[in-house]
Amino acid sequence: MNANPGTLGIDYFIAHPSFRTYALCAAILGLKMLWSALYTARMRGKHRGFINAEDATVFGGAGARAGTDEVPAVAHALRIQRNDLENIPLFFAIGLAYVLTGASPLGAVAYCWTFTIARILHTVAYTWNLQPWRAIFWGIGILALLGMIVHVLIVTL
Amino acid sequence: MNANPGTLGIDYFIAHPSFRTYALCAAILGLKMLWSALYTARMRGKHRGFINAEDATVFGGAGARAGTDEVPAVAHALRIQRNDLENIPLFFAIGLAYVLTGASPLGAVAYCWTFTIARILHTVAYTWNLQPWRAIFWGIGILALLGMIVHVLIVTL
Amino acid sequence: MNANPGTLGIDYFIAHPSFRTYALCAAILGLKMLWSALYTARMRGKHRGFINAEDATVFGGAGARAGTDEVPAVAHALRIQRNDLENIPLFFAIGLAYVLTGASPLGAVAYCWTFTIARILHTVAYTWNLQPWRAIFWGIGILALLGMIVHVLIVTL
Repeated sequence: MNANPGTLGIDYFIAHPSFRTYALCAAILGLKMLWSALYTARMRGKHRGFINAEDATVFGGAGARAGTDEVPAVAHALRIQRNDLENIPLFFAIGLAYVLTGASPLGAVAYCWTFTIARILHTVAYTWNLQPWRAIFWGIGILALLGMIVHVLIVTL
Repeated sequence: MNANPGTLGIDYFIAHPSFRTYALCAAILGLKMLWSALYTARMRGKHRGFINAEDATVFGGAGARAGTDEVPAVAHALRIQRNDLENIPLFFAIGLAYVLTGASPLGAVAYCWTFTIARILHTVAYTWNLQPWRAIFWGIGILALLGMIVHVLIVTL
Repeated sequence: MNANPGTLGIDYFIAHPSFRTYALCAAILGLKMLWSALYTARMRGKHRGFINAEDATVFGGAGARAGTDEVPAVAHALRIQRNDLENIPLFFAIGLAYVLTGASPLGAVAYCWTFTIARILHTVAYTWNLQPWRAIFWGIGILALLGMIVHVLIVTL
């Protein structure tokens, strides 16, 4: 049956519109997470906020010393990343389970893009300290996850 | 062959009992993680434990001010989430690799449910400060992950 | 068509060399993350660095008390795990999307093994405080992720 397993991806998953939507959103969220990692590194360099002694020595320039607590700008950047870690890996798994358990193409577009855009706007709101916007975008992301979870539960139970 | 790729999920993955078990457990663990996120938010509100100045202003009520360290109840809730982050995304990936590399339906039930129940009980034990139970449930989760990892290594090596 | 869905994994995914590479690397990275979790636990025991009161009571021996801040060796171990959490779950999702959207077997080997080896060496460099090596291995991992993300974007856009 699987005459040419080497083309599994192209033939099978790519032909599936829900999976394409998921993969595209996962790639965009991956870029967003890499951006946030670089933002943290940039804040660390800009404010010379080092925690590891070897970082201060190698990257801090003359006189730089590592602290015992993160400087405020770095701690802020780390909180942005931490909130991503509490939400985006959940999308990676739940979104995939959702599209592989029979999401309609329209449902996949609605849930995946809602989550993806909400998380991008969450980062924007967190970076510029915008409340209640940050809480609203966080909540929209949670609702999108919840919708997909309920779908998977209905199909698999 | 794939005459109707729009039904990939229903036809293929849903018909696969190991995958169904994985998807169901992933959805339950997703709910558990959302619960823990809401628990942290609740502790933050209850103890008015804010770190971002804008949170204290918008959600803290009169006189609320952001601190520089998390208050104990919030730090405790964040540790529950952090331990989840160190374990559950690992299940999302390893569990999927395990069922897609030929887990028997019985093996999938045994490993996935052991992990899922152990992680729920871990949260219960952490919330009410129950040792050595918390360590035991953490260890059971680790052993379930290890079993699935060994299976994937044997099949793919 | 799917006469025997119970053999989905063996017949389909295992026959696909890119997926095998991904699953093998995911299993190795899973082992690496479990190792890092045990390293943190070991540092906690060795330095009697407890944060939860119940941990100090049950595991700390006579006179052990929980602190309000992590001791340096534990904080260091937690930073190793945290950097993993910011990178490895991203590989779990992006690597899978990459192999399922038509990665060539050679491309899968190049990207997956580059990432896997870079992350192992990152842990080695972090454990022994080796800069700029730690930054270099972190950057190589980021570049491997970026390459896979670009591939997924090209195929799905």
